[in-house]
Amino acid sequence: MEFIDRREFLARTGAAVAIGAVASQQGIAESAETPTEQAVGTLGPAGSYSHRAALQVNNQVKFYETMFAAADAVSSGEVQAAILPIENSIQGAVIDTLDILEDRDLYITAEVNVEIRHALMAQSPDFTKVASHPEALAQSSDYLSREYPNAEFHEVDSTSAGVELATTDGSVAAVAHPDLAEKNDLELLATDIQNVSNNVTRFIRLETEPATEGTKSTLLLYPGREPPALSSDVLDILRDADIDFTRFEARPSTKALGDYVFHADFEDGDPEAVIDAIEPAFDWVQYLGTYDLIMDCR
Amino acid sequence: MEFIDRREFLARTGAAVAIGAVASQQGIAESAETPTEQAVGTLGPAGSYSHRAALQVNNQVKFYETMFAAADAVSSGEVQAAILPIENSIQGAVIDTLDILEDRDLYITAEVNVEIRHALMAQSPDFTKVASHPEALAQSSDYLSREYPNAEFHEVDSTSAGVELATTDGSVAAVAHPDLAEKNDLELLATDIQNVSNNVTRFIRLETEPATEGTKSTLLLYPGREPPALSSDVLDILRDADIDFTRFEARPSTKALGDYVFHADFEDGDPEAVIDAIEPAFDWVQYLGTYDLIMDCR
Repeated sequence: MEFIDRREFLARTGAAVAIGAVASQQGIAESAETPTEQAVGTLGPAGSYSHRAALQVNNQVKFYETMFAAADAVSSGEVQAAILPIENSIQGAVIDTLDILEDRDLYITAEVNVEIRHALMAQSPDFTKVASHPEALAQSSDYLSREYPNAEFHEVDSTSAGVELATTDGSVAAVAHPDLAEKNDLELLATDIQNVSNNVTRFIRLETEPATEGTKSTLLLYPGREPPALSSDVLDILRDADIDFTRFEARPSTKALGDYVFHADFEDGDPEAVIDAIEPAFDWVQYLGTYDLIMDCR
Repeated sequence: MEFIDRREFLARTGAAVAIGAVASQQGIAESAETPTEQAVGTLGPAGSYSHRAALQVNNQVKFYETMFAAADAVSSGEVQAAILPIENSIQGAVIDTLDILEDRDLYITAEVNVEIRHALMAQSPDFTKVASHPEALAQSSDYLSREYPNAEFHEVDSTSAGVELATTDGSVAAVAHPDLAEKNDLELLATDIQNVSNNVTRFIRLETEPATEGTKSTLLLYPGREPPALSSDVLDILRDADIDFTRFEARPSTKALGDYVFHADFEDGDPEAVIDAIEPAFDWVQYLGTYDLIMDCR
């Protein structure tokens, strides 16, 4: 069982008992004039890539400790929408968000792409430690081990937490989005130090009501409990519907091994017509919304 | 970036620098008569579910700290095969193993299903702490919080580590597979305390040469860089091949957002004929082996 992502599983099972309360939150009002109900919720802390995505949608952002808590805040009306990552070009699907789409009565109303960029920043070039989120350190490991082979790595909870350390401690450099250097009066020592380029994360906006128009639609498709997952009958009907699926992602139904729900995206099709055409192949089809890319944030 | 599984990303990028050497290992010879080269490698420690799966294949098991290290040990000839989890009925795909299948020149030669079962064990019913791997605690949280609302949770690296603690400390109970109670002279206080039944993990055996026969085959399919991932052309050819896919899993190609490699399983088909039929729809098709379920271990 050591291969299961811990945070994800805990969140799925609602096992707050093992990690403490999951729904605690810290709100940051970016604009005092906008009522709180108009805020969007996302994963904190401030300065994270989720925050960057959320700011493309709304300048008032509330931060939550888990994606599940952010989604629940939409259902309860505490925020008008949640901005959640659904897919990264290197890592693939963000499982928590796929599960939220299956479990919550929410719709995708927009998407936002955010490029993940890492920069090195510090009070001066004379630092001895590099602090950041473990993935940011890993994603910048080629550059860091080549240019600073003697620097000590210090793992913190977020790229923003690393920046905070660097602002208070001159011996610490941070790896974070380049914008955070100027905002925190740090010297930008290097930009684009990530090992792999094309590191883009797609975020979705989730709301309680679907949008009325858009070019891209998402469906959940459940072929039924009996294997095979994608039988020739199912392929037959999918093909006859003449749809180009831009994403086709399997998630376990949790009923049995090999029993899947598919998350399917398509573009430029009338969702109602598509659902009518493919419904015979599936036990159920659930509509998750039609939406547009509202901002490509690089 | 806080949504990315850390261990997985580090392993993917080979960023050993951030977490220390990944390939350190501890070997446990279960049978002194068998030469080491005949051992199978898996994720440690002893007593883990990976160990249970490996014992279905071979009674000599070597333990590795990561799945990547276990796979490398097959390539280098240090072990004859690796036993790796590929899919769990609740969690879904095990990303590390999918990536190993894409990156290493190894074949799937068998599969083993192992049911995940949790039991509570201690020196006596008078314990104050429950120690286990975080997922095992989370997966048993309904029972534990109902029956032992005052017990303190103690997270350790594996279910086996929790059992070890329980054997040395009478105030600690462990959550682990029921077999570990008797083996460690602990009292079995409750069995099947997991929240969700049908928790089965599928493991694969990986070797340097494919098996010569079997009923199930696995392919990697790459439709090409241009979206859409599953265009009507691709569906057309998949349908004409008249195959029932029992699994169809998308993994990012890492080249661009929305660019996927598919992991596809089918049963009862001649892999050569299937590859010939579907090859026109894909930029490349890679054969990962034909194999049987060798043991359903409950």
